[in-house]
Order: sequence, then C-alpha cells, then structure tokens
Amino acid sequence: MSNTMLAVVKEKAAPGVVIKQIPIPRPNKGELLIKVKNASICGTDIGIYDWSDWAAGHITPPIVIGHEVVGEVIEINATEPTNIKIGDFVSSETHIFCGYCYQCKIGNLHVCENMELFGIGRNGGFAQYATIPVRTSWKNDTSIPLEAMSVQEPLGNAVHVVNKASVMGKKVLVVGLGPTGLCAAAAAQALGASEVIAVDPVVYRQKLAKKFADIQTISKLDPKMYNSFDAVLEMSGHPAGIQSAFDAVRIAGTIIAFGIPKSEISVNWGKYLINKELTIHSVFGRRIWETWYQTTQLLQSGKIDLTKIITHTYNLADFEEAMSVMKSGECGKILLEIA
Amino acid sequence: MSNTMLAVVKEKAAPGVVIKQIPIPRPNKGELLIKVKNASICGTDIGIYDWSDWAAGHITPPIVIGHEVVGEVIEINATEPTNIKIGDFVSSETHIFCGYCYQCKIGNLHVCENMELFGIGRNGGFAQYATIPVRTSWKNDTSIPLEAMSVQEPLGNAVHVVNKASVMGKKVLVVGLGPTGLCAAAAAQALGASEVIAVDPVVYRQKLAKKFADIQTISKLDPKMYNSFDAVLEMSGHPAGIQSAFDAVRIAGTIIAFGIPKSEISVNWGKYLINKELTIHSVFGRRIWETWYQTTQLLQSGKIDLTKIITHTYNLADFEEAMSVMKSGECGKILLEIA
Amino acid sequence: MSNTMLAVVKEKAAPGVVIKQIPIPRPNKGELLIKVKNASICGTDIGIYDWSDWAAGHITPPIVIGHEVVGEVIEINATEPTNIKIGDFVSSETHIFCGYCYQCKIGNLHVCENMELFGIGRNGGFAQYATIPVRTSWKNDTSIPLEAMSVQEPLGNAVHVVNKASVMGKKVLVVGLGPTGLCAAAAAQALGASEVIAVDPVVYRQKLAKKFADIQTISKLDPKMYNSFDAVLEMSGHPAGIQSAFDAVRIAGTIIAFGIPKSEISVNWGKYLINKELTIHSVFGRRIWETWYQTTQLLQSGKIDLTKIITHTYNLADFEEAMSVMKSGECGKILLEIA
Amino acid sequence: MSNTMLAVVKEKAAPGVVIKQIPIPRPNKGELLIKVKNASICGTDIGIYDWSDWAAGHITPPIVIGHEVVGEVIEINATEPTNIKIGDFVSSETHIFCGYCYQCKIGNLHVCENMELFGIGRNGGFAQYATIPVRTSWKNDTSIPLEAMSVQEPLGNAVHVVNKASVMGKKVLVVGLGPTGLCAAAAAQALGASEVIAVDPVVYRQKLAKKFADIQTISKLDPKMYNSFDAVLEMSGHPAGIQSAFDAVRIAGTIIAFGIPKSEISVNWGKYLINKELTIHSVFGRRIWETWYQTTQLLQSGKIDLTKIITHTYNLADFEEAMSVMKSGECGKILLEIA
Repeated sequence: MSNTMLAVVKEKAAPGVVIKQIPIPRPNKGELLIKVKNASICGTDIGIYDWSDWAAGHITPPIVIGHEVVGEVIEINATEPTNIKIGDFVSSETHIFCGYCYQCKIGNLHVCENMELFGIGRNGGFAQYATIPVRTSWKNDTSIPLEAMSVQEPLGNAVHVVNKASVMGKKVLVVGLGPTGLCAAAAAQALGASEVIAVDPVVYRQKLAKKFADIQTISKLDPKMYNSFDAVLEMSGHPAGIQSAFDAVRIAGTIIAFGIPKSEISVNWGKYLINKELTIHSVFGRRIWETWYQTTQLLQSGKIDLTKIITHTYNLADFEEAMSVMKSGECGKILLEIA
Repeated sequence: MSNTMLAVVKEKAAPGVVIKQIPIPRPNKGELLIKVKNASICGTDIGIYDWSDWAAGHITPPIVIGHEVVGEVIEINATEPTNIKIGDFVSSETHIFCGYCYQCKIGNLHVCENMELFGIGRNGGFAQYATIPVRTSWKNDTSIPLEAMSVQEPLGNAVHVVNKASVMGKKVLVVGLGPTGLCAAAAAQALGASEVIAVDPVVYRQKLAKKFADIQTISKLDPKMYNSFDAVLEMSGHPAGIQSAFDAVRIAGTIIAFGIPKSEISVNWGKYLINKELTIHSVFGRRIWETWYQTTQLLQSGKIDLTKIITHTYNLADFEEAMSVMKSGECGKILLEIA
Repeated sequence: MSNTMLAVVKEKAAPGVVIKQIPIPRPNKGELLIKVKNASICGTDIGIYDWSDWAAGHITPPIVIGHEVVGEVIEINATEPTNIKIGDFVSSETHIFCGYCYQCKIGNLHVCENMELFGIGRNGGFAQYATIPVRTSWKNDTSIPLEAMSVQEPLGNAVHVVNKASVMGKKVLVVGLGPTGLCAAAAAQALGASEVIAVDPVVYRQKLAKKFADIQTISKLDPKMYNSFDAVLEMSGHPAGIQSAFDAVRIAGTIIAFGIPKSEISVNWGKYLINKELTIHSVFGRRIWETWYQTTQLLQSGKIDLTKIITHTYNLADFEEAMSVMKSGECGKILLEIA
Repeated sequence: MSNTMLAVVKEKAAPGVVIKQIPIPRPNKGELLIKVKNASICGTDIGIYDWSDWAAGHITPPIVIGHEVVGEVIEINATEPTNIKIGDFVSSETHIFCGYCYQCKIGNLHVCENMELFGIGRNGGFAQYATIPVRTSWKNDTSIPLEAMSVQEPLGNAVHVVNKASVMGKKVLVVGLGPTGLCAAAAAQALGASEVIAVDPVVYRQKLAKKFADIQTISKLDPKMYNSFDAVLEMSGHPAGIQSAFDAVRIAGTIIAFGIPKSEISVNWGKYLINKELTIHSVFGRRIWETWYQTTQLLQSGKIDLTKIITHTYNLADFEEAMSVMKSGECGKILLEIA
C-alpha cells in the first residue's frame, strides 16, 4: 500500500475540484479505514462543485468530497462494541451524529443537534481510501450487490419518505423523478401503496422510471387529478412541484416535503393547509439504522433493483466527465468505480 | 308563540346587518326547531359583518347569521334514530355534513366534501328561533353551565388543535390569544402539556389569559426561545405568528396551523421544514362528535371554566354594540343572551 | 313477483335448518328491499347450523340466516340522504349499528354498543329477497365481479386485520388459512409486507393458498422461527395457534387477535407479554366504511382476485349439501347462487 | 479512600443476603466508578432476597444486589463521547444494552436482545461504591432532589406505562398501588388524563395514594364500572387485577400490562379481546433516554414529588430491617442512605 491516493478535492472556495494525489488518511479513535470500492454522485455534489450558497455555508476547503460510499474495512480503531470486522464491506451514513445531544439521546440520531457531514464538514469518499466513524458505518450483508451498496444512501432517503407517508393502501403521487424520486416511487410500490403515479416533465426520467420499476408517469398534473391523492411525495424542491403537491393532495391527506427549494416558497395557507386539514411531514436524511435495515430488505427480496437505476459508470480519474453528465440531467445514478 | 322573531340578517352583499322581525322558520324533515337561548360571536362574524372576500365567496344574502348557538328543542321533525327530546338544550355544530361523501363515510364528518355552513350557507342562530339538522345537533348534558354551551364551538376548535398536537408531556407555545387561542392554551394545560407559554402583543389578552386559566404569557418570542418548543399551536393567522411558529419549534417538533392568514405566506422551506424535520398538521373545525365529548368532559371536571372567558353580554337587539366591542379587540368572548 | 320466496330458516333452537317458502319481506322505514344475487357461507354459519352455545346466545328462532350477501335494490324506503338507487348491487354490512351510542358518535360504527346482527339477530340473506337498512348497505362499483361482492365481507375482516398490524415493510406470519386467513395473507402481500408466511396443518388449504395468491405456507412453526416476525395475524382461534403467535412474534412486535377460541386461553403473561413488550390488537368486524373502500380498491386493481378463493357454488335449494362440504374443511369459500 | 466497602451480597443460591466488606471495584473501559449516595429497594429485590424462581434463573452468586441507585462520579474510564464529568450525580439505568443488536440499532435500547441487568446479572449498587457503564448512566440535573434520584427508576416505568396508554383526555383506571402503581396514577394525572381512579384492597396504600398525589382510590371494582375506562394500567400482576382490567376497559379501549404474574393467566379471549376490540401494550423497563427526560421534567415542574412516596429511610447496614418492612407491604418506597 502506497502512502498516497487519488482523491477529488475541493481546494478553494470557488467552483470546480482538483483530482490529485494526497496522503492516505489514518483512522482516529472510533474510526475505520476503508479502501473505497464504489461511490455515487449525489445532487448535493453538484452544488458543492459549483460552490452554491449552501456549499459555501457548509464547507471549509480543502476537503475530499463525496458521501455516498462503500468500502472494504482494512483497519479498525474501535473504542466501542461493534460487529464490524476487517474485510467487511461498509457503507457510510452521511450524518455523523454526536451521540449525546437531546435528539441523539431520544433515538433521533439522524437529526442530531451537533451534526457533522461526511464529505462536507469532513473528508469524504471520492478517493481511494477514507476514514469513517465506526458509529456511522453500516455493515452490508454479503447478499447485496456491490453496485447497490453506495446507492443505499438515496434509497434510504426515499424509504424514510415513504415510511413517513405511511403509504400502505394509499394512492400516491411522486413529484420529481431524480434518483431519490425514482427510489421513492419504487419504494411506495413495494411498500403497499394502492397506486403510484409520478410526475416529471423530463422524458428521459420518465423512461428511466418505466425501466427501473415500471412506474406510471405523467409530464404534468391534470387539474382533474386535483384533490385525489392520499399522499404526495414532494421530491423536486421546485416551487411548481410544491404547488402541485398542494393541488394534488386530497382533503385530510399527507404531503411529504423532501426536495429543497433554492428560495422561499409562497403558500396559500388558508386555501390549502387549513381547508384541506393536511398533514405535512418534512424529511431529513434517513433513520439510523431502521431505514438501513429496510433498504437491505428491499434489496434482498428483489423488490427494488438499484442496478437498474445506475445509468453511467466512471473511473475516479474521470470525475470531471461524470460531473458533466450529472449536470446534464440525462442520467440516473452515476457510479464511480474506485477499486 | 308569535309568528315572527327578532333576527340579525345579512340583507345585502355589503357591509353591515339589519336587526329585524322575520317569520319563525319551520323545521324540514330531519331538522329541529330550537328556541335560541344564547349565541356567541365568532371572529368569522366580523368578516361577515364587514363583507370580506371570504364572506362574499360563501354567503348569498339574505341570511340570518350566527353559528355559535345553544337553544331549547321545541319541535323535532326527525327521520333517523336520535336521543334528542323536546326540552333538551342543544348546541349546533356549524359544519353540516352530507353523510354520504367519501370523507363522511370514513368518519371524517368535519371535512365533508359537500359541507354546508350554519349561519353562513344557510340561516343561522342570531335570532329567537332557528332550525338545525338533527345530525348536527349536540345534546348538552344538564351539568354544563348554560353560558358555556354556545362557547363549546370555539373550545372544540381548541381541543381539536391540542389533540392534533398530542401535547401530553410536551412543552407548548400558543401563538395568538384570541378566544380560541385562549381555549387552546387552557386545553393544553388540562391535557398534560409539561409547560404552556402563550405569545400575544395585546396586554388585554395577556391579562385575560392570566385570569382565565393562569396562562403564562409573553409579548414577543425571544430568540433564546427558538428551537425549544415540542409543539407550537399557531392560532393567530398572522404572517409574523407563523414565522414565530417556525422559529420556536424544536427539531422534530410539531406545528398546528389553525389561524387563517389573509394572504399568501412566504416560507423558508429548506431552513425550517426540511432541516428541522417537522410535522405540520392543519386543523379545520372539530371532530364530530369526539371533540364534543371532550369539551363536555373538560367543562364537567371544572378543568376549563368558559364563563371566565366571557367578558361581555348583550341582548340580541344590541348586536351592533356587541359587534363594535368585538372589533375593538378589547374583549374575550361576547355572548348574546336571547331567551 | 310472487308473494313468497325460498329461504334457509333456523326454525327451532336446535341443530339444522329448514329450506322453505316464506313471505317476501317488506322494507321498513330506512330499509331497502333487495333481490339476493349471491350469498356466501361464513364459519359462523356452521355454529348457527349446529346450534353452538354462541348461536344459542344470539339467535331467537325462527330467523332467516345468512349475512354475506349481495343483492339488487328493487325498493328503497329511505329517510336519510343516500346515493343508492334502484338497480344498484349492494352488499350488506353485517353489523347494524345504531348511529347514536358513544362508539357510533365517535366514528367506531363497527363496535356500536347496541349492535344488531344481520342474519343472526334479524332476518338475513340466504333467501331470494331480503331487507337491509340503508345505513348498512354498500353500493358496489360496477367494476367488481359479481362473485366477489358477497365475499367482500370476510375480505374486509382480513383488510381490517392487516391495517391494524400496519404490515408495511414488516415480516408477517398468518396463523390459520380458513377463508379469512387466506384473505389476510393476500392482503398483507398487497399492502406492503416485506415477507408473508402462513401456517396451517391442512394440506388442502396450503394448496389453495398457493393458487389463490402464491402464499408461502408451512405446516408447523419451526422453533428456529421463534421471535422473528414483526407481526403475527392470529386467524385460527385455536389455543395452539395463539401459542404460536406468542412464540413467533419478535420483541416489540405486534399480534392481531382475530380468531375466536371456544374456551379460555392460558397465557404466560410474563414470558411473552411483558418480556417481549408486545402490542396486541384484537379485531372485530371491519371499519364502516373505510374498509369497504379498501376492499374495493384491492379488487379493482386486481391485487386480490376473490374468484380464486371460491371453490364451490350451489343453488340455494342445495344448501344442505353446501353446508356439508363447508363442515368438511376441504373448501375455500362456498357461494350460493340465488338469482 | 479505603480499599474495601460495605455491600449487600447475594452469596449463595438460597434465600437471604450477607452484608459485608468487599473490595471497592475498579471501572472497566467504558465504565464509571461512583460513590453511591442513595439506593431504593425494588419489588424485584424481594424475589432476589427470597431466591424466587425468577431470581434463580437470572442470578449467579456471588453478586452485589441493588439497581435503583444514584451516586457521585469519582472516576471516568470513558471511551466514547459523553457529557458526564467527575462530581456529577448519576442514576443508573438498570438495563445495560449492548448497542449493536437489531433492537438497539433501531433505537429500542430498553429491549436489547443481549441485555445485562445491573444488580442482577452483574454487581449492583447496594454498596458504598459501584461501577456502571457510561452508556447506562443518567446525569441528573442539579435541580432534582437527591432523595428522588434513585426513585426515578420506578417513576420511569410508570411514565413509560402512561405514555403507552396515551392517557391525554382519557378516563384511566390504575390497578395496584405499589410504588410503581402510585407513580403511574400520579403521572397519568400530570399527563392529562381526564380522570384517574386507582384500585387496591390495601388501606395503607390507599392512604399513601391520597397523600402522595391526591389520587382517588377504591378497594374493589364495582360491576357498575365495567366497560367504562378508556385505559387501564395493570400494575399489580395479580390474576384478579388482570381480570379487573379486562372487565373495566371500555370497548375499543387500551390495557397496559406491566405487573408480572407468578403463573399463567387464563383469558376469555373471545369475550374480552375480540368482542371489545382492545389494544394491549405490555411494558418493559422504560425508554432510554426519552423517559428519563420526562421524569426530569415531571420532577422539575413539581408535578410529581417523589419525596412524598418515600416512607422509610435506612442505613445500608440496616438492610435486613429495611427488607423486612418491604415485605410487610406497609410501606411506600424505602430508601437506603449510603453516603
């Protein structure tokens, strides 16, 4: 093992990244060293690349980016009991919880009050090696396909969304068919929705939805569909998408807010909220570790096949090209094969 | 019994009302005729008086206004089984449900898809007599003080709000101390909130809150209180109140939206909804009849004393004066003593 | 239309029935007269036939038996608003609720405190004509196959069981594969259980389960399966089945009690209940009308095909033969084709 | 600091204990050493003293007994992040969870699949010093009275029971007024039950209930009270108590099973469970750490005053006398003042 590794580094507080050799990190107490096998690119990574306001507010360069990651454990510097062993393939949970704040203590680890973010607030995994805390490492069952392991992160978001909507027996609208929206539609089908319809104007995504999980899609919400969905999963973060959610949901129905708009949203509070007596649940991340057990089950049972959502695969050295396809929107999930 | 009665009538699609003699109504099939004992004035009645956009959209004059009403049953034209008898004192549930739409059939009578509103879409109860459907009549227990009977309507709103917030063991902020906000704060205390604080800039209302139910009040939310309430009951409908709700609620907390703003509300969706992983329940009316059983219990046990919230009492003929005090804001609940 | 009709009558407080001509009934106020199209035989009907203790406690002969029924509306004597019209095909909800007791008033019509039972406490539908209250009549959508209409009753029990278990994403064990158990297993699959296994020692039923909905079956619970099911649906009512439920359910899991044992059950309260921190929901009937909307949806979507559960069809005149097959246990649902 | 300490030791697999000097323990990795301030005696300790079947199945002598304990932290051998400091007063959570089994990983630490019990499976706290894992140590707020700190354990059981019953607005029956039953009745009152009645035949306990929290008590359930309680908290574990729970609960009501009977319980499954459509939640321990936050809040607000439930105080050396009073039943909580 050499002393250096290839990594995608945000070097400056400005657009772009540098792909370069840097020293292989050492695991601190309570951390694992992993040899990264695969990583996948998240929508958030576009903002980080382009140096969005959000990125500027969360990142202090230089930092290795990338948070959807699976790697083989090659060193364990554990201090607490764990079932993880050398040679295990672990996925990283992005949200590094403190373990002792109020939310952590009552079991809401995913909304820790002192959250640190992997690949954002500390070095991530678009690299040949990475260190991750033992407490945010998920030991993958060997039955899970390697290509799916890093993509469990966004699938987990989707499953958490679908759980919050309690879709069982419900007619569900999914707004937005990015990778997490695709996963949400597939998970809603797998978890007992009576009917799932997804809306997205992009034809490429509609076709991918069909191929991925035989999802019924529309380009636009017809006013005839207003007030007819028991649950709407808002995955787009677009103002028009949020408006569609309010229109589509039926009286006494549920909206899940997952997509994050770039600016404030204007809401007709009286007409939509009050008159319809709605429930809105917003969703952040995924439950640690309930959701991961559920993603495992969905993958093992074959009810969801994440390999069908991966449309492009690149070497780490070709990250710039991968990012360029990512930004085109003509893609599903993009995988970086690292080792 | 004469053939005519005094009534407050919205005669024209314009501000103001006329107080005049009109024929006593006859109960249709499925209706009761009541001799109105008391009625109370709701905030909605101000908008009706002033001919707000909402009123213009819901009312076709001429109509007898008033929906918070209690009366003695003097005639029953029932077609279905009922436990109501001549001489009973019944309160009217404002929301006249159809009984056969989807929401009615699944037990959500209060959000009926074909709702008619008492005192808004049909003649109401600011009058000496009124007809009300048997199916929206609540037979009061004789242990309930007469003055409280009509005020159970807004208390019911408050109890429904408090139920939706599931306040048991929670630290609760009430935003806005109009009569329903006052009831919500008192109900939250009675139903097991660990702590209740209410915010309203109006000193009169703060004093009334103290007198009514020893409610702890503040004039303004201190930024130190941000992110600290398990549940926020938004009873004001003011943009600043809604903003306070988003600021005050803790991570993974709950907001109840009850107050209705006059125009659209701008929401920082990402910062508040997504990052805090909130639940928002909006509330419309009250459960029929679960909530009424609960208001009865709260009144019978003495945990809430609605007579303390009534600050003014008028004869029906003095309705204009009552409305003028109502509009001043320097009041709690205003009662019309009719018979 | 003649004045008499063929009917299956419990004439005496003793085993057996008489199949004979009796006068066609007249609908009282609030009732429909239907020309019965199909009826299906319930396990309860065996007890009624054999004059079990339960039957003796609930039935005062003479009475027309049969409660799983669909018929064409030929006369309406309605007093309340309804969407039912002459010519509609209505199924009967067995539980005739009063509409004004506490449970009815809070929306729990199915556990009315003054319940009357169709075909048990009043004349039922194993006959050419029957009268049923408007308020317990379900107007079938024309998309539902006629053969399935009466069988929605037990499907409704099953759906209510599955809802109470909130099976979404859960590993589910179904104990007992009588018709309602079969429906419960199929409904659990359709409503998002991660895995469904059904246990029943009878090979005939296991085969039917396979044919009906490709249900995975076992003859006996292997101790290796102890403590591994998130939810157990106890549909058998056998002491051994109930014991299996306690063994099979995992820590913090859920048991649904639906089957009714003939005598008291001995429970190791400490070992099973307390140590496992369980939830037990017992289930009675089905939600009126939430569950019926759900059965309609499951039938319309093709997720459940009730025609596959019907193994025998008889004319009303051949009721004795139908009952004899019913008692053999070598059957699924038995249908009486009446008109 | 001497090298030895006084401790209550279960030396042999037989009734009785020995009070003797033993070496002060050393904290292992991940453990604290505390100087025990107070401890309280639990009903379980009687069984341990008398060497019940349960004790024989869980304890391998010799062991220091006692699990309701508060002590001052004098040494920290921590390996994970913690907010606990030297000098803090920590209470011990009895249930020492592993942290990596399925239940732990999904946040149900209190029903860990590999549970170890403080003072039962490992040395406990009826001693001058004790070691406890950092992860099961609760840092007390300085506002909590010292005498109440160890008694938070049973209060926590009671609060967990009351939470599971969701008592807000409900009419509640508490069966059994041992210390945890007393706490359950007081917590139900504090957390918004509409009415709380407690049943216990022992006059001493009824008087204590009155003094402790003005609890309304009865000696026996009158048949007129059958079917009238929304929730019944079964704290006694007596067959007659469990029977009372089934009789007292109303249709569609909830029973919480907390008391542990000595032998199997015979249940009329059909009459009580099925016909009433009940929910039974059994309760084990208390939520870690949600419940502890709630007990803190109840103590801080003054809504529950645990000092009133402590009827006797002894030195550690007088443990035999304390145990003898404990067994008499004529006591509330018995405190051992140790340092």
